[in-house]
Amino acid sequence: MNKYIFLLVLFFLFLGTGLNSFAQISHPNLILTKEGVKEIRSNLGKVPMFDNIVATTKAEVDAEIEIGVKVPIPKDMAGGYTHERHKKNWFILQKAGNLYQITGEEKYAEYIRQNLLAYAKMFPTLPKHPTDRSYATGKIFWQCLNDANWLVYVSQAYDAVYDFMPKKERDLVEKDLFRPLAEWISTDNPKFYNRVHNHSTWGNAAVGMIGLVMNDEVLIQRALYGLKNDGLDNSMVDNDGGFIKVDGQNKAGFFAQLDFSFSPDGHFTEGPYYLRYAMTPFLLFAKSLANNRPDLDIYNYRDKILEKSIYSLLYETDAQGKFFPINDSQKGMSWNSREVIAAVDIAYLDFGSDPMLLSIAQKQGKVTLDVAGYKTAADIEKGLTVPFKHKSIAYRDGAEGKHGGLGIIRADNSEGNEICVVAKYAAHGMGHGHFDKLSYSLYDEDGEVIQDYGASRWVNIDQKGGGRYLKENKTFAKQTIAHNTLVIDETSHYNGKVKAAEANHPDQYFFNIKNPNAQAVSAKELYAYEGATMHRTFVLLKDENLRNPLLIDVLKVASEKEHQYDLPIWYHGHLISTNFDYTAQTNNMTTLGSDHGYQHIWKEASGKSTGTTNQITWFGHQGDGGGQVRGKVFTMTTSALPNDELILGRAGANDPSFNLRPDPVFIQRRKAGNSVFASVVESHGSYDPVSETPVSPFPSITSIEVIHDSIEYTVVKIIHQSGKNWTLAISNKDASDQAKHQLKIEEKLLEWQGGYMIK
Amino acid sequence: MNKYIFLLVLFFLFLGTGLNSFAQISHPNLILTKEGVKEIRSNLGKVPMFDNIVATTKAEVDAEIEIGVKVPIPKDMAGGYTHERHKKNWFILQKAGNLYQITGEEKYAEYIRQNLLAYAKMFPTLPKHPTDRSYATGKIFWQCLNDANWLVYVSQAYDAVYDFMPKKERDLVEKDLFRPLAEWISTDNPKFYNRVHNHSTWGNAAVGMIGLVMNDEVLIQRALYGLKNDGLDNSMVDNDGGFIKVDGQNKAGFFAQLDFSFSPDGHFTEGPYYLRYAMTPFLLFAKSLANNRPDLDIYNYRDKILEKSIYSLLYETDAQGKFFPINDSQKGMSWNSREVIAAVDIAYLDFGSDPMLLSIAQKQGKVTLDVAGYKTAADIEKGLTVPFKHKSIAYRDGAEGKHGGLGIIRADNSEGNEICVVAKYAAHGMGHGHFDKLSYSLYDEDGEVIQDYGASRWVNIDQKGGGRYLKENKTFAKQTIAHNTLVIDETSHYNGKVKAAEANHPDQYFFNIKNPNAQAVSAKELYAYEGATMHRTFVLLKDENLRNPLLIDVLKVASEKEHQYDLPIWYHGHLISTNFDYTAQTNNMTTLGSDHGYQHIWKEASGKSTGTTNQITWFGHQGDGGGQVRGKVFTMTTSALPNDELILGRAGANDPSFNLRPDPVFIQRRKAGNSVFASVVESHGSYDPVSETPVSPFPSITSIEVIHDSIEYTVVKIIHQSGKNWTLAISNKDASDQAKHQLKIEEKLLEWQGGYMIK
Repeated sequence: MNKYIFLLVLFFLFLGTGLNSFAQISHPNLILTKEGVKEIRSNLGKVPMFDNIVATTKAEVDAEIEIGVKVPIPKDMAGGYTHERHKKNWFILQKAGNLYQITGEEKYAEYIRQNLLAYAKMFPTLPKHPTDRSYATGKIFWQCLNDANWLVYVSQAYDAVYDFMPKKERDLVEKDLFRPLAEWISTDNPKFYNRVHNHSTWGNAAVGMIGLVMNDEVLIQRALYGLKNDGLDNSMVDNDGGFIKVDGQNKAGFFAQLDFSFSPDGHFTEGPYYLRYAMTPFLLFAKSLANNRPDLDIYNYRDKILEKSIYSLLYETDAQGKFFPINDSQKGMSWNSREVIAAVDIAYLDFGSDPMLLSIAQKQGKVTLDVAGYKTAADIEKGLTVPFKHKSIAYRDGAEGKHGGLGIIRADNSEGNEICVVAKYAAHGMGHGHFDKLSYSLYDEDGEVIQDYGASRWVNIDQKGGGRYLKENKTFAKQTIAHNTLVIDETSHYNGKVKAAEANHPDQYFFNIKNPNAQAVSAKELYAYEGATMHRTFVLLKDENLRNPLLIDVLKVASEKEHQYDLPIWYHGHLISTNFDYTAQTNNMTTLGSDHGYQHIWKEASGKSTGTTNQITWFGHQGDGGGQVRGKVFTMTTSALPNDELILGRAGANDPSFNLRPDPVFIQRRKAGNSVFASVVESHGSYDPVSETPVSPFPSITSIEVIHDSIEYTVVKIIHQSGKNWTLAISNKDASDQAKHQLKIEEKLLEWQGGYMIK
Repeated sequence: MNKYIFLLVLFFLFLGTGLNSFAQISHPNLILTKEGVKEIRSNLGKVPMFDNIVATTKAEVDAEIEIGVKVPIPKDMAGGYTHERHKKNWFILQKAGNLYQITGEEKYAEYIRQNLLAYAKMFPTLPKHPTDRSYATGKIFWQCLNDANWLVYVSQAYDAVYDFMPKKERDLVEKDLFRPLAEWISTDNPKFYNRVHNHSTWGNAAVGMIGLVMNDEVLIQRALYGLKNDGLDNSMVDNDGGFIKVDGQNKAGFFAQLDFSFSPDGHFTEGPYYLRYAMTPFLLFAKSLANNRPDLDIYNYRDKILEKSIYSLLYETDAQGKFFPINDSQKGMSWNSREVIAAVDIAYLDFGSDPMLLSIAQKQGKVTLDVAGYKTAADIEKGLTVPFKHKSIAYRDGAEGKHGGLGIIRADNSEGNEICVVAKYAAHGMGHGHFDKLSYSLYDEDGEVIQDYGASRWVNIDQKGGGRYLKENKTFAKQTIAHNTLVIDETSHYNGKVKAAEANHPDQYFFNIKNPNAQAVSAKELYAYEGATMHRTFVLLKDENLRNPLLIDVLKVASEKEHQYDLPIWYHGHLISTNFDYTAQTNNMTTLGSDHGYQHIWKEASGKSTGTTNQITWFGHQGDGGGQVRGKVFTMTTSALPNDELILGRAGANDPSFNLRPDPVFIQRRKAGNSVFASVVESHGSYDPVSETPVSPFPSITSIEVIHDSIEYTVVKIIHQSGKNWTLAISNKDASDQAKHQLKIEEKLLEWQGGYMIK
């Protein structure tokens, strides 16, 4: 290179840097940019879906402007007035900021300005929030977390009106509001800020975003890399019982969140309900960094971890887009939440315009009031939508992907309706984890068939503990018996201790979806019980004899000593019939046990196996509600041993505040050492209360039998009413694709390669 | 008149009679007519909704033709193969007949011909149906009722192919099938045929319709006027425990059904679920008579009773079109049922083309494959639809309208969403009646708020008793405690005796909807308990302070002696909170009582009033199911006396077969003589699990108090959180509009005219 060219390059580098640093102090510079605003403005009136959002947002914000600025002295818990008002403020201010940029109407900027001045006036007078009920109490809210939420949104509002406000007022709000608030949620509350946890992600993003608006490098660095010295020790816990620090992990800040919050596949160890919540600060701060610090190349960080995490959010849902409620989750939360609307729009704009995302945006019916939302709406308008299709997928858990995972297998019936099994062999999920190793749940196109209970919590309902986790979350919802997995000696996995559960995890044994007619997932748990190991395999079988894909479930437990095994199935619906006799508790009902969640289950009835196969048939709950149990008909068929006890129970005992849902459970109880629980769940029938016509109300599977069980192999045989039968063989010791297996059973030689064979 | 004109008139009269009698033997002559077929044929391809029905019906019937004729020897109960096959046959044959007429394709006629010959071959060999479990066992089915269903439909098929079949074959099927079947369900089974009951209406219609096809005047007369001598006595009962004969009523046949089945308003004493079922034979036979016997002027009979009954069917539904499940009803049944589709289409064609009916037809999405369906579809296509609007309406019960009734009051909130209260003060409802005098249920636009349990029955579900009424229908669903009305001394109304309940009825005291902001209904029951009378008044109050219309419920019981009063409210949802303390049965649960339905209720908790007002707040069940209780928030506020016991219970005790739904109930228990139970039910809040936002989760009504109670007047005061209050005064002795009332309470003079006053 000659020196002129060298100088020219230097000049342009300088120019680029200069422009870049100039761009950093141009506003808006966070989520909205000058160019983006220009694009939106020039297309107003051309994209109905986006214009609708502008119109409804205007109506919403205009109504608030009408009411006037409301900045009450903080006092209440979530659900109470001051909490809900400040929460409303953060959303309205962010929307007002976007409206100001998009429409140019000054009333929006003025409304923000007045709010900021009111907050700046109040903030210096605020002590710690009077509730003092959080491990990290906030100033405006009862917890720092909500203060951080507020700052993430209000930073955007401030960014939008930065140029509108006189410098003197900017200096005031920065000095009296934004800087001290940023300090409060970071240096003043390291337990909240300096952790790898969704709470801290909000903290990091808040500090970083206000830092970017104010062009404050100290705050930006603190957001990216955390506090240097936090003085935290490893015994501290948060309100949910989660540990603040993880042994051997000392990083903090946004990059640490990106490094440790997700598995390499983008799975979030706490589950999709919490990922949805955590996603907002990840994406908003990442987008802000992408706009301001292209040098960080944040979207490509860790092999596109943010993009992967958005897809994990979408794939960890049922056919309706409802999140699998693993760990602490409120049911009903779905991809229609505002967080996923924003995630889908950003992903569409910034991660390659995947046209399947447009179909989700269409279902959501909303887009964000920014460039991402505009682009999404515009491309829907152009007809670029491709239907989103869920797929079978295994997610690894743990930052390095070595802590088990989640195996999701989906298969359609001939009408395109789905059966989906979710096998959970993930890590514990930190403070929100449940003791449910090798648990599963089952879905069809309408929703839950075999349910995961979710959390015992009524989010934001003041009468139910202000929406916090209820006592029964710990005593029931987290316990093993509340899940569809094996309980030994009426004791939860890891004896219900978080520390022990966090130190271990199940392992995926195989995940094989090559054969679309017999996709399978298998996992092992070795440490939940001393002296007993569990190995569970699920196969989703498609066959012309079956109306819907059939779930086959083989749970092998190995123990030298005899134990009491309880295998609960929380079927979702109303019992129709059983093929065994039982004695019901008719006049007087007692609980199933006294601890580990058993104290919360009424023992409605109990019986004994009469043959080698037990069956229960139930109506699924569907749509409508309306007091009528309706819809599909399901049967679980299980292999039986002569002394198996069969228990029908219902949640709700020892629940004086009626916090629990009165859901039914079927429990197989067996006293044994080594043993195999084999079962199938069949969706075979339906019922329409208007035509009053049942279709196929009886199961087509007549039996399932364990025909071989050894250390090496487990083999079950399933018989269909047509006479057709299937043999499922599982290689217990070597699941490698290359391994060849041979086994002689019932005079027939079974030969196969790999982890399992079914024919 | 000069004699030429006279002769001319005579000539035309003769010509008319001659043409008329000629028309009687032209085919088709029942539901389809030659002219109707012509009109449809000339418009095929022009009305998409109708063309769709033609296409889907063809697909359905073609598939059956493909399978071939299946006429198995009768053997099974409902739900079993032979039952379901013969049932399918009747529908397919009727459809094939209409397709033959409409399309002219002979394969449809041929399929009917072959079926009729197969039935004619089998029928003479049939003994009474082997099940022998009905009070009137059939030949093709387990009950004559289904045999009659079959004949009503197959008569239409025969009519359609009458001219297609050779006379010899017609003679054969008439001799070996139609005539003996008509005899079997009439002269051979008078208990079935000669009664005023929906079963007999089917019998009458079947005999009459085949009589019209065969032009057999004996059968037609028997259909219209019943059997002369039936040899029945008044002690006979049917399978549901209903009496075959009613004292003092000896008529039978179709005209008797028209005279005695409905009240003068068209209300059906068994309720809309059964009216829907009964409607088919009424309308099909009436239509056949209208086509063949214009001299009977059947549509104008009894001041257009059939038209009125169709409207009663439509008005006795919730906002979604689901029937109020009073008496024995399966929930979920709605105006989308095939019976109502046919009723709406016939009503549209023959009763004045009410354009509101078109909107129901649109919701139904289907029309009948005949002229009525064609005309309905064509007028929808023309854009003539007007939205159907439910309205407040009182239905009298009893053939003369003197046996109490049903008061339906509806009011919308500002968003057009409805609150609807259904006050039941009707006659007992024969064999399907419940012991629930002065009961009520409450609805909003989504469905049930305070539910009526309906029947304990799983229609057509083989595993649940073949779909027949279950034991728990008698021991629970019919009992008073299963309803939202007063139980005295743990004994059902009329001591649970049908005969006594049938002999009496409550009376409407007033029904006043003049003031749209305070519509009211009031009724009295004097005979359900010896020595105690009940008077209940419901007011639906609209006010700017209320988000939704407020239900006010004042139940006054008069008794010289002290009794135990239980007032149950079967709220539909999940308890959120109470304002009183209670002790829950946590480890061990017992039943509420031992008889009259109490044995089926688990007593979950019980407490005492702490103040003068009790409140319970609950989440309504809504849409979705999905394991999540969600949606609206409701509160019941009741006036309390110091020793009132407050009980929280749940259905499901003494139910070893899990036939009952585990629904919750709140019971106010009071020991008193004369007493007033006053309460309000408020729909005040909502919750969305996706936004996790509660709106107005607390009630706005803070108290309700009985401030005066005497033989003449009862006055309650309701206080709103805003300080606003309302006083409701009820005139207990004179409800006439003219009567003037004066009462001094709390130093204020109340003056009003009529049955009630609220301000």
